[in-house]
Amino acid sequence: MPTDTRDRLVDSGAELFRRQGYSATGIKQIVEEARAPVASLYHFFPGGKEQLGAEAIRRSGAMYELLIPAIFDVAPDPVTGVRMFFAGAAEHLVETDYEDACPIATVALEVSSHSEVMREACAEVFDSWIAAGVGRFGEIEPRIARELTIAMLCALEGAFVLARAQRSTEPLAIAGEIVARSVEAALG
Amino acid sequence: MPTDTRDRLVDSGAELFRRQGYSATGIKQIVEEARAPVASLYHFFPGGKEQLGAEAIRRSGAMYELLIPAIFDVAPDPVTGVRMFFAGAAEHLVETDYEDACPIATVALEVSSHSEVMREACAEVFDSWIAAGVGRFGEIEPRIARELTIAMLCALEGAFVLARAQRSTEPLAIAGEIVARSVEAALG
Repeated sequence: MPTDTRDRLVDSGAELFRRQGYSATGIKQIVEEARAPVASLYHFFPGGKEQLGAEAIRRSGAMYELLIPAIFDVAPDPVTGVRMFFAGAAEHLVETDYEDACPIATVALEVSSHSEVMREACAEVFDSWIAAGVGRFGEIEPRIARELTIAMLCALEGAFVLARAQRSTEPLAIAGEIVARSVEAALG
Repeated sequence: MPTDTRDRLVDSGAELFRRQGYSATGIKQIVEEARAPVASLYHFFPGGKEQLGAEAIRRSGAMYELLIPAIFDVAPDPVTGVRMFFAGAAEHLVETDYEDACPIATVALEVSSHSEVMREACAEVFDSWIAAGVGRFGEIEPRIARELTIAMLCALEGAFVLARAQRSTEPLAIAGEIVARSVEAALG
């Protein structure tokens, strides 16, 4: 079977999980969106939805990770970087009518207690986002930079939860500002 | 039909949504857990799972809201209150083997784009948690207290996402500390 079918399956899974979650997404819907035969899913992913799910999470995670250097490496300083990071997230949320927030969070909450394969994929993505953030806080020592990165990701993920429910970008603005000021304080 | 059946249905729904999300929870599972006949669900909730879901979210939200005064009103000061709030959440998460985090967040992420009834229930819960927090930051003016409450809820919800995936309370400790220091700074 053509390997671009495999790619399309992973992309469709990633897209559907992000928009409606893992549990609500059936194999039938994934293969339909990918314009692929059902057999192709089991051909490429003998472990079924869970195996495809873990790969989709890793692929989405790697793509979103690129946003960290894309924003922080052009920002004039880390404090501005944090503000740009949250402003970009807010803009994207509005553009997608509050649908497209984090590709990992919904799945992490849904399946962390039920699928070790999926939980590990989500944990790996968060670990690699943290690693990507640590080097981007200028003169701040690595241990503190790591804490600030974790705080930034927590604030962002939680702000997405409130923002989606309230259909408002206010939580992103407020959470982003708290993190920006914490970075400012750490820079002294 | 006895009204305690209605109560049991809502409680079962709330419990199942919290542990596995809204999409993964079927009506059959709700009535089984509630030891109630299927007909009773449609008797009490003509709108089916969505109507029961919205009520379950509101009930869970009201219960969890009680934690805000329960912690902040006994804390010696708001900064300690924030630390106690996050420490309590971390302890509960460990006690429940990382299953029992927020009863609203999973549902809010899953269905905000697909069910206006459920989205509104989630938004109402967050609004009422914010209102419960605002009065609990001592001398801080209401506008700033509101922002700190929103930042605290964002940090907590996001920390739950990372904590569940990583099976670690570290994100809660780090996110809580950032919020505690922000409250400290606001108190001057």
